[in-house]
Formats: sequence, C-alpha cells, structure tokens
Amino acid sequence: MKNTTVRFAEMPRAELEEKLNGLRAIYEDYKAQGLKLDMSRGKPGSEQLDLSMAMLACVNDYDAANGFDTRNYGIVDGLPEAKALFADILGVEAENVIVGGNSSLNMMFDYLAQAYSTGLCGCAPWSTQGEIKFLCPVPGYDRHFAVTQHFGIKLIPVEINAEGPDMDVVEELIKDPAVKGMWCIPMYSNPTGITYSDATVRRIAAMKPAAKDFRVMWDNAYCLHHFEETGDKLLPLYPELVKNDNEDMVVMFTSTSKITFPGAGVAAMAASPANVADTKRRMSVQTIGCDKMNMLRHVTYFKNIDGVKEHMKRHAAIMRPKFAVVTEALERHLGGTDVASWHNPKGGYFVSVNLMEGCAKRTIALLSEAGVNMTPAGATYPYGNDPKDSNLRIAPSYPSVEELKVAIELFCICAQIACVEKCLEKN
Amino acid sequence: MKNTTVRFAEMPRAELEEKLNGLRAIYEDYKAQGLKLDMSRGKPGSEQLDLSMAMLACVNDYDAANGFDTRNYGIVDGLPEAKALFADILGVEAENVIVGGNSSLNMMFDYLAQAYSTGLCGCAPWSTQGEIKFLCPVPGYDRHFAVTQHFGIKLIPVEINAEGPDMDVVEELIKDPAVKGMWCIPMYSNPTGITYSDATVRRIAAMKPAAKDFRVMWDNAYCLHHFEETGDKLLPLYPELVKNDNEDMVVMFTSTSKITFPGAGVAAMAASPANVADTKRRMSVQTIGCDKMNMLRHVTYFKNIDGVKEHMKRHAAIMRPKFAVVTEALERHLGGTDVASWHNPKGGYFVSVNLMEGCAKRTIALLSEAGVNMTPAGATYPYGNDPKDSNLRIAPSYPSVEELKVAIELFCICAQIACVEKCLEKN
Repeated sequence: MKNTTVRFAEMPRAELEEKLNGLRAIYEDYKAQGLKLDMSRGKPGSEQLDLSMAMLACVNDYDAANGFDTRNYGIVDGLPEAKALFADILGVEAENVIVGGNSSLNMMFDYLAQAYSTGLCGCAPWSTQGEIKFLCPVPGYDRHFAVTQHFGIKLIPVEINAEGPDMDVVEELIKDPAVKGMWCIPMYSNPTGITYSDATVRRIAAMKPAAKDFRVMWDNAYCLHHFEETGDKLLPLYPELVKNDNEDMVVMFTSTSKITFPGAGVAAMAASPANVADTKRRMSVQTIGCDKMNMLRHVTYFKNIDGVKEHMKRHAAIMRPKFAVVTEALERHLGGTDVASWHNPKGGYFVSVNLMEGCAKRTIALLSEAGVNMTPAGATYPYGNDPKDSNLRIAPSYPSVEELKVAIELFCICAQIACVEKCLEKN
Repeated sequence: MKNTTVRFAEMPRAELEEKLNGLRAIYEDYKAQGLKLDMSRGKPGSEQLDLSMAMLACVNDYDAANGFDTRNYGIVDGLPEAKALFADILGVEAENVIVGGNSSLNMMFDYLAQAYSTGLCGCAPWSTQGEIKFLCPVPGYDRHFAVTQHFGIKLIPVEINAEGPDMDVVEELIKDPAVKGMWCIPMYSNPTGITYSDATVRRIAAMKPAAKDFRVMWDNAYCLHHFEETGDKLLPLYPELVKNDNEDMVVMFTSTSKITFPGAGVAAMAASPANVADTKRRMSVQTIGCDKMNMLRHVTYFKNIDGVKEHMKRHAAIMRPKFAVVTEALERHLGGTDVASWHNPKGGYFVSVNLMEGCAKRTIALLSEAGVNMTPAGATYPYGNDPKDSNLRIAPSYPSVEELKVAIELFCICAQIACVEKCLEKN
C-alpha cells in the first residue's frame, strides 16, 4: 500500500545481524518492564461505556407508544419503535426488521441453526443436503468462522481486497450448489477496515448462486462507527437486491453492542418478507419475546437515527486518538519498509497488518513473552490457518492511549525482529 | 376429587331441558354486557410488575463482585453472583449453573436444538438417529410441546396424576431407545397445579432409560411461586440423581420471568458438569455473553434467595385472592356435580379443570362468543389433541379481581351449558 524503500529482504547478512542486535536490546528493555497490555479483542474502553449511562435512567413509564406494557410477555419480533429505529440504521422498512436480544452473533447463529435443522423458506435442512460450504472473505472475523464451523460447514477462504471480497472468485464459487452462503462485514470490515465499494455491493446484489437457499450473512456491525469526520459510505444493499429480484438472498444484522453496552445492547436483523416470516415462525417457538424494556430504553434515549449519530461522535472523539497512535507508530517504524503493509481505516475497531510472509506467529510470540496480548496469528482465517502466516489484527479500543503507545511501539519492534530473523534464515 | 352428588348424566330429559333454559337465560344476560376479558395466558398482572420497579435503579456501579465490568463483553455462562443465586434456587452448586438471557424457554429450545444438530455429550445428533420420541405429561404446557414438535420429534402423552407423571407408564416407555426425553414441570405443574411427590422425584432420579442421550427437561418455573402460607414442598432432584449416578440425565431450568419482569427477567439452567461443559461449548460459539447488567440488577436487588422469597410473598398477596375467586366459584357452581373436577393449587399460575368428556371445546366456544378469551381447548395436549375433549386451563393472574369474578361466573355457566347439552345429546 506504500512505496517500499527499505527492503530487509535484500539487506546483506552483516547489516541484518547488526539490526537484530539493536532491536533485541530495545525488546529486552521493554520485556524488563513486566508489561500487561491487551490489544486482543474489539472491546470498547470503559470511557466509551460511560457515554451511555444516562440511558439506564431515561425511561419512567415502560409502556410502548402503542400502550403495550414492555415489562410483560409478548411481541416476539420486537417493539414497533425499535423496529423503526433499526430500519433506518439498516436501510430497510420497519416490516423487514426483527429486533432481538443483546447479541447479533446470537441472531446469526440461530439463523444458521435454523437453516441447518429445519431449512430456510421451504428448502430442505442443510443437515440433509450433504456437504455444505460457506465463503469466508479473508482476513475476516473469527467468530463468524466459528459459527459455520460449529455446524460442520466447510469454510472456503476468499481474498478480500480494497473493494471487498474478490468478486471474480465469488461469482465462480457460487456456481457450486453446495456453497450456501458468504460472510460479509461490508463497512469497516473486521479486521481490514475497508468498506465495500459500490461496485462490489452491486455485484453482490446481482449474484445468482446455484443454491436457492444461499444466504449472504451481511453483518453491518460498524455501520455508524466512523471516527474520521468524513467516514466511508456504503451503498445501501436492500434497494439493489430489490432491483435484482434478489431480496431473499441476504440477511442483515447489526447491534448497539458498540453504541451503548456490549453486554446489554440490542441486536436486530433485517431481511425480506419471506425470511422475516421464516424467522418469526422459529422465534415464536423459541421465546415469548426478547428484552423489550431494554429496547424501550434505547429508543427513548436516542429518539431516532440522528440521536444515534450524535452519540457516535462522542465515541469517535475517544477512538480517533487511539487509532492515530497506532497508525502513526506503524508509519514511523514500518512505513516504506517491506516489514508490513496496512490500511488506515476511517472507522470500525481494527487495524489489520500484513507482515512479511512467515512473520505473524513469531511476532505474536515475542509480544506475548513481553506481556502484550494480541489476537492470535491465524485467527483471521478459517480454521486459524493463515497460509502465509502474515496477517495480524490490532484492536486499539480497549487500552488507554498511554498503554496503547507502549504496546504499539513494542509491536513495531517485534514485527521488525521477526522480519529480520526471517531474512537471516533465508539469507 | 369430590363426592359427586348432582349427576347431570343421570338426570331425566325434561329436567335437563329446564336446566338448560335457565342457564341460557343467564348466559344471554352476560353476552349482552359485551365483555372483553382474558384468562388465556399465565401473564402476571401489572400490579405484580410494579413490585420490581425499584430493581431498575438499585445498581450504581456496574462492576461485578470480582471487579468485572458487566457493561462490557465477556463471561458467557453468567456472573458468578448470579450463578450462586440460581444455584440456591435450583438446589445445586454454582458450578452446575449457566445463567442466560431473559427466557428459560429459549434456553430449553437451544438445548434441544443442540441435541438435534450436533448431539449431546458426544452422542450422535438426534437429526441422524431416525425417529425421536419425547414423553409429554398431560395435561401440560403447550410451549414445551411446540419446541419438541418444531424439531419433528414425536410427542407421546403420559397421564399426570396427583403425584406427577404416571411413572409405571414412563418406566415402560423409556425402554424404547427412540424415547429421548421427557418434559417435567415438577412444582405447581402447568396446568394441573400439582407438585411431584417425593416418590415420583425418586423414581425419576432412578430411571435407566435405554437412550444414553435421554434428557429430563426439568422446568422448575414455579419453584418459589407459592401463594398459600404453607406451599407445596418438592424433593430436591439433584442429590437424588447423584445417589443414582444419573446426573447427566436431567437439565433443570428456571427464570425470574414471574418474579421480576416476564419481558426482562433472567433465566438459568442447571445440570451436571458434562452437560454444563457441552452447553458452554455451544454457547461460546453462539454469543459473547448474555445481559450481565440485568443479572447484576437482580442480584443486587435480591441479595440472596431469602430476598427472593420475601419478594414472592408480595406476589402471593396479589395472587391468593385471585385464585380464591376462581376456586370459590368453581366450588359453588360445580362442586359435587359431574360437570367438572379440579385441583385447588397452593401456588403456580393455573387452575386446571377437567370437564365432562366432550365439553371442553363447546365451553370455550360459548365463552368466546360472550367475550371471554381462554387458552384453547386441547392446548394442554400434544398436537392440540385432548382425546377426551375435557381439559381446560384457567389463568387467573392477568385480569383484576373484579374482572375475574365475572369471567369465572360465566365460565361456570358455560361449562354447565356444555355439560347439559352433551347429556341431552346422549339422552
């Protein structure tokens, strides 16, 4: 992504050895500090959680707008006013929305569990259809991969580029009727931070997969999570699906986990009338209703999508300096080298770093030895298998700016050590 | 259950006709009132929901006892202090407990979905084992039956008597390896209101089903829901299971849906170490964690099981007069007749009435015509099929005492009309 001017791969052995000695000395100094830092997961910091505390006390009367007592049983698909809010967030009509519990991951799991056990929209259950495959843009989100793997689905990696998944490859793979779906994080993708281009969204909307029960799992987890003033723009998918007569092919998900509380937010899905009916059929057996008091708290606090957007600016003010620390250090230490390349995201929760091949595991091991916990190398690939041992995910949200400064400096040192070691090995 | 002194079945035709005319005149008067009353579901009344409003504001600091910030991601199996509370409620150790979201029904569904899709404790998935059968004590809870039916499981009714399910029949049926489980509501059973006798609990604990992956779904929904001073006592099941080396055979469930808020309570399950590990394996793929802020609110508000018991006395004060209205009217109108028999429960949410054979649907139709909504006839049986068309479930909790007085008077009139009509038909 940058012009490489310093190439360790072409450095003479003596120079590499001298470099390694210098780096090791710095590393030992860090190690002696007995650090204990965590950049492993996309957890909001406690300052971010404080932003939503007023929500907990904003409701006096727990009746919904239609007079329904949210404290009691009922309304399996969510409060009407919560549906309306999530419709605006996901770019659909309220009738396309089901509001769930506190976890969109849980809604995704349950949707695929239904596909597996009783089938989607009248199709045979996946459990009866032999081998099932799923497309996994890589690097991607380990928890997505885990859900499909749980049901014994074969995971097919597809490279993600600056515009989204490699659609030439995707369009070829979906000719296989055993390919039943694809994971997508279309905005500030986890971990690459890229947002799908309009062209990619249009190609996804126009796909004609061989499997009638093929589903795009459109996890729009970061749709309002800009931290730069002018964030990325994502072309709304649903109208494109309608144009292509393809509404049933996609199920969208989002939540307020990274808007209010990760442990007590509200999740939602949006889909075509057929998918909504199918899901409600299952949900009406599974539960009498999700937490409607929490839905009402959210709607009362935010009022509408503009209220959410205002709130997200306060998150941005906390996140922006943290990401700046990370990308500034990466640029300063690794910019213009062949040690690493990365994308500077305008939102989301991650910076994805591609190291020189064969250097990811070693970098993580060095960091771990010095007390810095990172997402394991390989975690961004199905089965934990990054064939190039190259990709690492940095999650800057949880540590303080001060902690982050230390952790990312050390990260850059470790990455260089791993890289120099690798070059010496080959030299 | 009473000595029958007035037997419509033996009344001369002329007397029946005269009786019918009198009843019809009263019925028409009720009908003219344009009533709109609901005794259909076990929903707490709003007075009961008001009892827990203070809970919503009882937590200032959302850190758990161990310092964990409950607002953030993590802890898939629930807060330690919530586990401890539910352990006391269910009569197990905290390590046997998983605390979930707001719905125990959802936890039951998910447990059986796991049995169906990936199998229990290393056994083959039920989806691969051919026909699967489940024992359903009748009359029972329609939502239980619906969950098993959703997965295509064959439902086998087993009569419930004053001591619980007919264990002679159960012990015979579990010799069939296709029989994979049994639904149980051991305390204040829905709808009969009976509590399993010690002998029944002991026989359940000692069962040796042919299927290794046979599971008793022990839904202890009403374990603290006494409304009489001296409520029923249930022999704790888990120690009996241990005595019989049978811990893996049972999974227990409960929730605070009818303690705090039906829409926003906390649910829990308890089981053997093997079952807990199995469930956590699935849950750790399904979600990052349920709503821990709500768990903390519950634990902070109640402190311990004694706090819950005190709170339940306030529910009892509301429920007792409602049940008294129902059982008093039943006794006054139908006591000592062959129209109906019933059990006067000491807790729970229902009164179950067994009408003369062939009279349940007709009674419901008459009530509906006059504006009183009841649980449909047959709902207490698998597939909605009560072979005797006899059982009806009365849910006295939701209407006010005044509404209930009207509804139950009318119920008694309608039951008598249906009965007299049936006798005339046969006469």
